Amino acid sequence: LKKRQYIVSVDAGGTKILAALIDSDNKIISRAKKSTDAKNGANAVIKRIIECIESTLIDSKVKANQLAAIVVGIPGSLNSQKGIVYLAPNLSWRNINVVNPIKRHFNIPTFIENDANLGALGIHHFGLGKKYENLLGIFVGTGIGGGLILNNKIYRGKSFAAGEIGHIVINPKGEKCGCGNYGCFEAVASRTAITREIKNAIKTGKKTVVTKLTNNYDLIKSGTLAAALKSNDKIVKKSLRSASETIGLVIGNMSNLLDLNAVVLADGLIEAVGDFMLPVIRKSAEDVALPQNFKGMKILISSLGDDAALYGGIALAKEVGLF
Amino acid sequence: LKKRQYIVSVDAGGTKILAALIDSDNKIISRAKKSTDAKNGANAVIKRIIECIESTLIDSKVKANQLAAIVVGIPGSLNSQKGIVYLAPNLSWRNINVVNPIKRHFNIPTFIENDANLGALGIHHFGLGKKYENLLGIFVGTGIGGGLILNNKIYRGKSFAAGEIGHIVINPKGEKCGCGNYGCFEAVASRTAITREIKNAIKTGKKTVVTKLTNNYDLIKSGTLAAALKSNDKIVKKSLRSASETIGLVIGNMSNLLDLNAVVLADGLIEAVGDFMLPVIRKSAEDVALPQNFKGMKILISSLGDDAALYGGIALAKEVGLF
Repeated sequence: LKKRQYIVSVDAGGTKILAALIDSDNKIISRAKKSTDAKNGANAVIKRIIECIESTLIDSKVKANQLAAIVVGIPGSLNSQKGIVYLAPNLSWRNINVVNPIKRHFNIPTFIENDANLGALGIHHFGLGKKYENLLGIFVGTGIGGGLILNNKIYRGKSFAAGEIGHIVINPKGEKCGCGNYGCFEAVASRTAITREIKNAIKTGKKTVVTKLTNNYDLIKSGTLAAALKSNDKIVKKSLRSASETIGLVIGNMSNLLDLNAVVLADGLIEAVGDFMLPVIRKSAEDVALPQNFKGMKILISSLGDDAALYGGIALAKEVGLF
Repeated sequence: LKKRQYIVSVDAGGTKILAALIDSDNKIISRAKKSTDAKNGANAVIKRIIECIESTLIDSKVKANQLAAIVVGIPGSLNSQKGIVYLAPNLSWRNINVVNPIKRHFNIPTFIENDANLGALGIHHFGLGKKYENLLGIFVGTGIGGGLILNNKIYRGKSFAAGEIGHIVINPKGEKCGCGNYGCFEAVASRTAITREIKNAIKTGKKTVVTKLTNNYDLIKSGTLAAALKSNDKIVKKSLRSASETIGLVIGNMSNLLDLNAVVLADGLIEAVGDFMLPVIRKSAEDVALPQNFKGMKILISSLGDDAALYGGIALAKEVGLF
């Protein structure tokens, strides 16, 4: 039993696959990274996941039979018990069994979990220096994902599809969302929404430093937004403030519904410009939340960066008693 | 031990106190009812609760020492472990210990719980012929209350204040709510909101049978709304449809967030006109919910009527192992 003292944790995102080999001190001892290349189909992506896992083993001179478990985070709805991904729009996957080919290759217990759930779990166990019993992770990037930890465990719902906070409708008369609905949270407050607002401002002749920083207004990078903030750009500030107000409204509502101990913000946009957004978010959440519920609720920025879901893999392996 | 085969379950509402003596077959064998008269202060209300409990005992010839537990539902935020009601606006209570005087009087283990939580628990265990693992109870009356059952248990949150669905902000530019905020769910879709809409229609000269059915437009009774529906009244239909659409929107959002097995609607308004509202609610929920989450989620009307919280008391007494 002493031999199986490692796990590999994988975060298979829409653009890149991250893998980490983790030892029994919860330390990442080697890493691998590949672009996802989802356009070549599910088998090709699974092959790349396997290559990433192998790469972490080779780099650290650990053998596959020393692994206690492999955990893979997937951006989609899935059945973690059956190992099947039902729908992962960013990977163009529908009803794909991810677990079987990986398990067959390494002969190691393999688990999948929604990436936002894993991210929230990672933050819960490793990201805050304290375990908040009821925690909502909000991942603000191109879209908006959510992961709920309730009573110290991932809350999955009846069909493993809970936490879809990005598709809470904020304003039925709002912008169209990728899901087909109008006014979803992610259509109103994600980086995509912020980009759209800035683009519209540029179209109507407003001046912004963004036009000097990039030629591509289709999805303005978080780094570009951060640079524009440093230049005190009014257009960028306005659109970030507007997104922050909506994020705060949603957090206030979640506080009223779930009486949370903590809300943790994470992902690209937050890492880049979260310091500017956080005070606006807090104020807006406080306006909405009932005093009793707001009292003692923390609103924090995750310190785990890209590694939140990888750390979540450790917690999941422990949860099933394999690590 | 065989002697302690009964419990008394109490629902202490803003207008009336209901009590029921329940035997080990989960059957209500006697009942008591008193007006709450909250204006005389907390001690007077607690005295009336005690009188109701005594009355159920006398009527059924059961002795207090045959009780396994007393459970009291309270419309407010409270700490069920400490027995303290923090805030119950409808009772004008703030920091009242309800448990101690009742426990002292009967010398029986006594518990308090939020009435909407108890109602949801009662529906979960006794109201549907089946236990839905993740269930939201929405109580639509003068206000809107909510109770969450997650993983088959009451979900209480960090400070026992979860489930305040009535104070989720739907429209920050909407009507003022009793809580001080604008556009809360209960300010938009409760009987109070429906009354306001009808009143406004009457003010602007619209014709409605409501003017023949009542002289009091301050809070139109659910029975009056039901009678107006029977007369096919357009104004009443319109306002009920509008409230139903909002209720559906909230249910769709809750489905996306919590991937619920069931949402159960209850309380005065739903009992009176729920059959008219339900199809509109379902349609509106389906428009908002992600297909995966909506699939298999039931939207139902409670069959327990006023007794939901009383039945919840049975389940709570079982939960703590006393019944």
